[in-house]
Amino acid sequence: MQGSRIVGEVRVVGAGLLGASVGLGLRAVGVDVIVSDASPSNLSLAIDYGAGRAALDTDNPTLVVVAVPPDVTASVIAAELAAWPDALVTDVASVKVAPLAGLRALGADVSRYIGSHPLAGRERGGAISARGDLFIGRPWVITTHDTIPAAQVGIIEDLALDLGAVPVLMTAEQHDAGVALVSHVPQVISSLLAKRLNGATESAVGLAGQGLRDTTRIASSDPELWVQILGANSSSVVDILREYRDDLDAVVGILESPAVPGARRALAELLAGGNTGVSRIPGKHGLDRRFSQIVVMVNDTPGELARLLAEVGEIGVNLEDLRLEHSPGVQIGLAEISVLPEVEVGLVAELEARGWRIAEAAR
Amino acid sequence: MQGSRIVGEVRVVGAGLLGASVGLGLRAVGVDVIVSDASPSNLSLAIDYGAGRAALDTDNPTLVVVAVPPDVTASVIAAELAAWPDALVTDVASVKVAPLAGLRALGADVSRYIGSHPLAGRERGGAISARGDLFIGRPWVITTHDTIPAAQVGIIEDLALDLGAVPVLMTAEQHDAGVALVSHVPQVISSLLAKRLNGATESAVGLAGQGLRDTTRIASSDPELWVQILGANSSSVVDILREYRDDLDAVVGILESPAVPGARRALAELLAGGNTGVSRIPGKHGLDRRFSQIVVMVNDTPGELARLLAEVGEIGVNLEDLRLEHSPGVQIGLAEISVLPEVEVGLVAELEARGWRIAEAAR
Repeated sequence: MQGSRIVGEVRVVGAGLLGASVGLGLRAVGVDVIVSDASPSNLSLAIDYGAGRAALDTDNPTLVVVAVPPDVTASVIAAELAAWPDALVTDVASVKVAPLAGLRALGADVSRYIGSHPLAGRERGGAISARGDLFIGRPWVITTHDTIPAAQVGIIEDLALDLGAVPVLMTAEQHDAGVALVSHVPQVISSLLAKRLNGATESAVGLAGQGLRDTTRIASSDPELWVQILGANSSSVVDILREYRDDLDAVVGILESPAVPGARRALAELLAGGNTGVSRIPGKHGLDRRFSQIVVMVNDTPGELARLLAEVGEIGVNLEDLRLEHSPGVQIGLAEISVLPEVEVGLVAELEARGWRIAEAAR
Repeated sequence: MQGSRIVGEVRVVGAGLLGASVGLGLRAVGVDVIVSDASPSNLSLAIDYGAGRAALDTDNPTLVVVAVPPDVTASVIAAELAAWPDALVTDVASVKVAPLAGLRALGADVSRYIGSHPLAGRERGGAISARGDLFIGRPWVITTHDTIPAAQVGIIEDLALDLGAVPVLMTAEQHDAGVALVSHVPQVISSLLAKRLNGATESAVGLAGQGLRDTTRIASSDPELWVQILGANSSSVVDILREYRDDLDAVVGILESPAVPGARRALAELLAGGNTGVSRIPGKHGLDRRFSQIVVMVNDTPGELARLLAEVGEIGVNLEDLRLEHSPGVQIGLAEISVLPEVEVGLVAELEARGWRIAEAAR
């Protein structure tokens, strides 16, 4: 057991996926974790899973981590600030402006509150899904504000580091605008796209390919949780949705009169804006580099994909990304392998020499 | 070499990815393929790659396959119908109403034309990317119309079957409405979402997760090709985009006044519409069943993922889907394995017994 950076007891309020995972992760580095939940059965479950111990009259936490739904985050933080006058309090909610504003409206002592947001895990699932290693390698946003002593920020950085996460400092406004763009708006856009499928014929949805699957995957998220998130970050989200709607209006106008001079150029420029936008998303290791894709045909039998990847490993090539594409109605799969561009030609030659059928490689 | 269903010479016009792949696939089953392209260098390349032979004065094709960009599809079909009065002509363009309407406007003999559309391959890349097995297991839509003898349809079915594809009959209108929904509208929606990233700060895009990557992946598609596709299917696409915009307007209105009574319920219902929509997309084997997902942590070294999949194979479990998730900044990967629900619990236990760290499994 390695030692922790955090000193003293940590109290975790809310024993869902995130709270229980914080508890498990901190206990793994030797921290005394007190776990609390409004539901006695949730609490028992989290304690059974090893996320921490029940509260005692002698508790004296140095840090409180609030991990409850967005709607009740501010009121729970306020209650914890009042209950533990010597403790620093943080939360892990996925919005950061609203809790701070809520605390100020409640007259809470925000000089002992620092918001944070680990970008980890699915936003669903209870203690039963919790893992102590949930945060490893993930960004852990820490939102500072005027009335907090800078030294306190180091305690939240220690929390993130104890859990294997990467601390990232930004203001609450920067955080909320950022997650609106990279998470909240994509959720709305994807859900509304998937909603269009409700009236479709069977033969139409039968034509679905990987593009539709990718764009609608997050549309299966929990509406109740997302109503809370979107409501708590409504102004950042709506700013971006209005800009999105302006572009959508432009596309609708162009496609209503596609033969008008200039229409095609305007449409091409809108689509090209998507090209440059998507190139800004950082790659696997935080680099904005493009990989080469090779598509290999694999039979849909146990071990066949493993054999392919074992041979890729034998060839000495590291996979940067991998995804399976599906062929509807047949027992065959297409494995799309992303590799560094400089190894692509050699890998294709080696794989073909070993009898693999390459369905697609660089042009 | 197995025999072909197609009888006689097949002439392929346009030696890009699709045309050259048709040529390679037909030659593999023994068909005499004539390949033609407006560009002499493209034509030489396709012949070098084995996609067919050059035209001769003695040619007498029974079938012509037109595989040229959407903008010129109708005029090229008309020219082929005129040049080969005994041949049946088809095309592989990704829109089907516009070419037929264009032919009728040109006064062409549409009693010898049947449109088709293989849903295969990326919509880019030339003969150099062509593969004879590109169409294996993919849907091959055949669009019939009033003035075509039913017996002729069988010849296009033979073409699809010779190439390993699955023939699907529908009208041109059904096809265009279907691909508007599952392919053309998602392209617009994804491109416009990715376009929002152009003005973002580095710290904001640094928060990007798998959800953003999935929803914007197709935004890297070629704008010039998509301008042609969207222009040729504008009325079907714009019908769906208008409905999409109505929903988007509703979300904007809700988020402008999120505290209004009924706002949260209305937002939850819109998001729930996405849940039901996404559930309509058929799964890997044409079934609408949901798989269980298990997320396993793998070190980012050659062969590590292969070892995992080899062990999954040893356990006797077949992967239904697999994707890698990335942790920004660290050398670790998360492999999300989709399996039949009934094998999940056993697989998790077996993998953990073998020392794998399971980051997430069913709740």
